[in-house]
This record gives sequence, structure tokens and C-alpha cells, in this order.
Amino acid sequence: MIFSSALLENAVNEFAKLPGIGKKTALRLVLHLVKKEPVETARFSEAIAAMRSKIRFCSNCFNISDKEECNICSNPLRKKEMICVVESIRDVMAIESTQQFNGVYHVLGGIISPLDGVGPDQLNIDQLVKRVKAGDIEELIFALNPNIQGDTTVYYIGRLLKTETIKITTIARGIAFGGELEFADEMTLAKSISNRIAVEQYISTTG
Amino acid sequence: MIFSSALLENAVNEFAKLPGIGKKTALRLVLHLVKKEPVETARFSEAIAAMRSKIRFCSNCFNISDKEECNICSNPLRKKEMICVVESIRDVMAIESTQQFNGVYHVLGGIISPLDGVGPDQLNIDQLVKRVKAGDIEELIFALNPNIQGDTTVYYIGRLLKTETIKITTIARGIAFGGELEFADEMTLAKSISNRIAVEQYISTTG
Repeated sequence: MIFSSALLENAVNEFAKLPGIGKKTALRLVLHLVKKEPVETARFSEAIAAMRSKIRFCSNCFNISDKEECNICSNPLRKKEMICVVESIRDVMAIESTQQFNGVYHVLGGIISPLDGVGPDQLNIDQLVKRVKAGDIEELIFALNPNIQGDTTVYYIGRLLKTETIKITTIARGIAFGGELEFADEMTLAKSISNRIAVEQYISTTG
Repeated sequence: MIFSSALLENAVNEFAKLPGIGKKTALRLVLHLVKKEPVETARFSEAIAAMRSKIRFCSNCFNISDKEECNICSNPLRKKEMICVVESIRDVMAIESTQQFNGVYHVLGGIISPLDGVGPDQLNIDQLVKRVKAGDIEELIFALNPNIQGDTTVYYIGRLLKTETIKITTIARGIAFGGELEFADEMTLAKSISNRIAVEQYISTTG
């Protein structure tokens, strides 16, 4: 690509560093910003700069936060004795939007995956163990993606906490709402049969 | 979407204003920036801010430029008597990357399209007419997209310049290289037959 302006080229190159954005898309986005009012573009660049310089991670659960402690950890109405362990901040947002969980979170910041070079030391596992050992925790709910890496992580953390007297659970695997039985993979179908639940309980949770 | 940080929410909302970027993609991009080093993110936001505040349009051809006159207009090796009329800056870049055109450009900034509410007054047509009337122009090459709006624009500008003694041409329409005859639309095929060229000339331009 031949640019008539170094400023334009620089902006396009910065956009093209973002995941899933190639040079052509970057150019389209930058030309869109060029056409907008300078104040609007300033608002865009300032929002990014402010976000990066002021944002921090909750010292307790590693969720994104504006303050030392995130909104969820500092909310007195949330049950502090129930911790939901997730891979990323995006999972926190997904679970929060269901409005069904009233405990607190622990963001691991990734998942154990030797093939990608991610070991337990790179994740916030130590801090989770410390939180549990500090006491007052009753239940740890693992909400990790259902794959080998997720299962490995659950197994690894489960072993570290073997001596603790807490309940450790994982979110249910099964046929998704709106999914069709005949198209479900065997693993999911098998798990959904072995982990079947009483209709009485099912009605009380969905109805 | 429920955000745990107002800074995060603000950044996501700004990203989601860009064309073709929804809330989920915006969140993915912002979380990518959060994970990067603060200096890298600062470089990103500064590139955008600098681009928007310092960039300007060439006073001659309306191409994007760092200076009063763009690199192409100020290049003494380019033929000033040959103007290629294009819709947008992106078209300038596309033609420049072929390295086949040695004249200068005129960016209209759009195309006449009554359905979209774009009339001749919103485009840089007056300035083009002025450039031509100032003299020294030998040829005007229209490189607009081959659709009704493009043809209307060519016709409109052509009428304004009827009294001028310049050559007015348009880029050739025909079967694209690598394209297949049987899949070409009838319009293109018909035009490529009526505008057929001597093999001698064809060989000298492609060979």
C-alpha cells in the first residue's frame, strides 16, 4: 500500500496491529475517522488512552476495575463465600448478564495449556489458593470452557485444594437451549445423560 | 452488556461507533489493548490523535496530505496536464499501487447519488472545473466505479466542460484478468466487445 501521508500510514499500521484487522480494514476505519469531526476522533483516542492508563485489575478477583477493588467484590450484597472461577473478564461479563449468580469471581487470566506454553505459574492460581486458605469460602464453582485445557485446570486446582473442606463444583454440561439432540456430539450427549437431573429440580430452576 | 468499569465501557462504546464493528468485536479489541503494554496502547491512541489533528487535504487535488500540497501534486516528475478523476482517496491508493499512472489526481470526495442525497454541490466538482479552466490541462481520465452513479457523474462533469478543448476519457471496462468469460455479466461482456482493441495495441500494453 502506498500512502500519501505518513500520519495516515502510522494510524493504519497501529489499527492493523489489532487482532482480526488487516491493512484494508484498518484503512477503512482510519478514513472513517478522518471524515468525522476532530472532536469526535479526539473523544475516541482519549477514551483509549484514559482506559489504558487508569484501568486496573481488582486486587481480589483480577476483574477489570476503576478502583482498587471491583464493583462486584465491593458490593455488600454479593455472597463472598461463593467464588466462580473463570478464564477471562469476558466470561465474568457473560455470567453477569444472566443475572443468576450472586457470588463473587476469580479471573484466572487464562487456562493451563502446555501446547501454548501456558503453565500454572502464569495464571492467578496462587492467589485463588490464598483466597480459599484465608477461610470463609464455602463453594468454588468452575465455569471454564469444556475442553481438555479447561478440565486440566479444574483438575490441577482441585488437587491443590484437596485438603480444604470446601465444595468444588463445575457448571453443568448438556444440550443447550434451542439445540437439537440429533446434532449434539456424543460427548455432550453422554454427559447430559450421566448427569441427568430430577424433573422436579429441573422445573424449579427453569420455571 | 454489563461492564465492571466505566473506562472500559467508554472505550468499547467508542470502538463500536466504527463501521462494521459491533459491541462484541469492540470488547475483544479493547481487551486486547488492555493486555498490551501501556506504551503500546499510548502509541495507538497518539497515532489516531496526531492523524486527525494534523492531517489535511491537498489544496489542489483533495488527496490526504501532511502538507498544503500532497506528495503527488508537488512531485516535479508527475505530468500536471493529465488529471485522473476519482471518487475517494482509496481509489488514489489503488491506482498508485499499479505504478502505471504518471499524471495527477482529483478526488471528488464522493459521487453524484440523488438517492443518498449527494448532489454536485457536496463534491469537489467546482474546484475541478476551476483547475481545467486555469488551462494547461490536456486530458481528464475518469476512473469512477462502473455504475449508474459513476456514469451520471461523468456525464455531469462532461457537460460542464463541453466548451473546453481537452480530451476526456474513462478507464476501460472489460473482462478482468483471471476472470472467466462465462461468468461475466452481459453488460460487461457487451461493453468489452464494442470497445474491442487491436491485438497489436493489446500486446504492446500488456507485454
